[in-house]
Amino acid sequence: MNSTPRGNRLHIAIFGRRNAGKSSLINALTNQDIAVVSNVPGTTTDPVYKAMEILPVGPVVMIDTAGIDDTGELGELRVRRSIEVLNKADMVLLVMDAGAGITEYEMDIAKRCQEKKLPVVAVLNKIDASPVTALQRQEAKERLGVEPVAVSALTREGISDLKIALVQAAPPSWDEQTIVGDLLNPGDVAVLVIPIDLAAPKGRLILPQVQTIRDILDHDAMAYMVKERELKECIRTLNKKPRMVITDSQAFLKADADTPPDVLLTSFSILFARYKGDLETLVAGAKSIEKLRPGDKVLIAEACSHHRMEDDIGTVKIPRWIRQIVGGDLDFHWSSGHRFPEDLAQYKLVVHCGSCMINRREMLSRIMQVQAAGVPIVNYGVCIAYVQGILRRALSPFPLIQEILDDED
Amino acid sequence: MNSTPRGNRLHIAIFGRRNAGKSSLINALTNQDIAVVSNVPGTTTDPVYKAMEILPVGPVVMIDTAGIDDTGELGELRVRRSIEVLNKADMVLLVMDAGAGITEYEMDIAKRCQEKKLPVVAVLNKIDASPVTALQRQEAKERLGVEPVAVSALTREGISDLKIALVQAAPPSWDEQTIVGDLLNPGDVAVLVIPIDLAAPKGRLILPQVQTIRDILDHDAMAYMVKERELKECIRTLNKKPRMVITDSQAFLKADADTPPDVLLTSFSILFARYKGDLETLVAGAKSIEKLRPGDKVLIAEACSHHRMEDDIGTVKIPRWIRQIVGGDLDFHWSSGHRFPEDLAQYKLVVHCGSCMINRREMLSRIMQVQAAGVPIVNYGVCIAYVQGILRRALSPFPLIQEILDDED
Repeated sequence: MNSTPRGNRLHIAIFGRRNAGKSSLINALTNQDIAVVSNVPGTTTDPVYKAMEILPVGPVVMIDTAGIDDTGELGELRVRRSIEVLNKADMVLLVMDAGAGITEYEMDIAKRCQEKKLPVVAVLNKIDASPVTALQRQEAKERLGVEPVAVSALTREGISDLKIALVQAAPPSWDEQTIVGDLLNPGDVAVLVIPIDLAAPKGRLILPQVQTIRDILDHDAMAYMVKERELKECIRTLNKKPRMVITDSQAFLKADADTPPDVLLTSFSILFARYKGDLETLVAGAKSIEKLRPGDKVLIAEACSHHRMEDDIGTVKIPRWIRQIVGGDLDFHWSSGHRFPEDLAQYKLVVHCGSCMINRREMLSRIMQVQAAGVPIVNYGVCIAYVQGILRRALSPFPLIQEILDDED
Repeated sequence: MNSTPRGNRLHIAIFGRRNAGKSSLINALTNQDIAVVSNVPGTTTDPVYKAMEILPVGPVVMIDTAGIDDTGELGELRVRRSIEVLNKADMVLLVMDAGAGITEYEMDIAKRCQEKKLPVVAVLNKIDASPVTALQRQEAKERLGVEPVAVSALTREGISDLKIALVQAAPPSWDEQTIVGDLLNPGDVAVLVIPIDLAAPKGRLILPQVQTIRDILDHDAMAYMVKERELKECIRTLNKKPRMVITDSQAFLKADADTPPDVLLTSFSILFARYKGDLETLVAGAKSIEKLRPGDKVLIAEACSHHRMEDDIGTVKIPRWIRQIVGGDLDFHWSSGHRFPEDLAQYKLVVHCGSCMINRREMLSRIMQVQAAGVPIVNYGVCIAYVQGILRRALSPFPLIQEILDDED
């Protein structure tokens, strides 16, 4: 994740008057307690670019405009600098002190964003000191054109809502997370292991396989596709080591046996957990399965209501595996479709489907909702890899996330 | 084509009483003038299996039941042999002399076929001697359950209609032509060259590419996919020669330059011309472009009415190329959707689309309709390969069809 090229990171410009609390809000979003060194106001009008990670939104660049706030006159220089920043931003975070009013400054930024079709998330900060009234919300909405999010950077109240608002307002291009291309160099060979079984659509490939091939080609690498039975022969035909072997989870053990130990090995499920959500959070969620006790409530959530098959993954297999690990029965609940149950905090774990029918944005919103309730979340793919004991090997392309499995906590 | 394993060939059992003209009908269907050696009636009750080619239906096995016609008594042996044949057939050709009536024999066969859900094509033969009346047709339909085709094996009248009826009645499994798997041995490497251009669907592959990969995997071979820029590097990574390189036509010249001369090279268009139609006929059709004269009528037929793009293939590019070869303007006509124009015989050439929206069966019916009018037919893919001078190389996996290009005629 840390190797995300800066060009792919979501660029969020943060605007606000001097006392709106921009820096403390950035700290709250990034979970960093270390204070960001404040620029001495007035000494520079250059915005500061800070690459950082907002979990689970992903890698971002915060464009901190602390130096170009409205303390000076509405000078030409300030306007020019602001426009410059707006040209470089993917979205704008407009921060206001909930205790202060909305001025021409904020309305000007909001208007410019509207003209440029830049998404804006408006924040009423410091609600610990000044609770937000319905009237204030209404006024902000009318003047800025967007519903504001009420937060306190100090108490962290509302920070989850703000992350969700960021994800939901992010521009369409932000959904374009790469599947595997960022892990490959041009000219690398990725071997894809695809078992042809009865469940595969006749004469076709399933969509994740197709998307992975395309992503590999888009990144100037090469995709070598085989059935699991031909993997050994495939590696034998190559006179250089493949960079990575990506297998269907079904064939993981066979792929593991036939992949040289120094070649990265992962599964489509792991790649898509990362592509569609936040792999780090989901791996941490998998680890929490060990801490479950008989009788704990576990929510199994599916994004769509598909036709249930015999030996269904969500209603039969996953409960069975979790029971085996816990050594007793649990209180499983199920939800499907768009809405989660109201009281998420009652669960000890949420197990979410692979989200093939929802996009990254929606899956991340769901992950954040669950996190906001203080509950760990895992998805089907990561859960299955965990209970089958293959998660560590399947995380070989992601050593930092692999370490989560070893962390004491 | 001649290497089609016998198991994949459509098995057609031909039933009929002794004088119905079964053997001459087989000769008419296969275009063979050499007489099929008749079995001496009564000497054997074993059916004779004859592998042959019915153009453009494809490779078939005719199960000739000459020895088990109804000349003997309705004996138990005859019934047993008939049932045996019905168990091995994919469909039944039931031949009657148009001048003779429909007897219990034909009705029995038709009824058994119905019970087994075997498709039946009923033929009223010898219409040169006994023209068929509307009443006879009606009677045949009522007694046998199918509309009969009236033919004369002698004059070849109705033989095209019979071929179309065969194609249309063939069982669903017959559509399952292989794309490339029959050209590969298990363990072979096929390299697929896929240019990523603006026309490619974002994050996906186009269906023919997906179907080709799947077909390769289904045949225990390996599919190595690269963009045209990486082809050279891809071949360098292999320590054995790929069996075949399959390229998008757009990248043919680059692929030709980077493929070792002793490796088979073809295009998706050529494979799909074979998969969706009859490559031999379409290549012969391409060759006939040379014989066109300015002013000749050419029909450009598309199976669907798609949105026409600028520089559209059917209305702009293909006419331009053909004009350049002919050295003058031609009288182009266009048709789209399900029906061809009535009078096909007026055209000197039919250029058909790649038939991505229709199946093999429908495309073959169309090819036969055009052939019945004595007109050559080519499809877009084969036509483009021809006018661009790459057809010979693209036919390298099909040496027998390649020879058509050299034939004097």
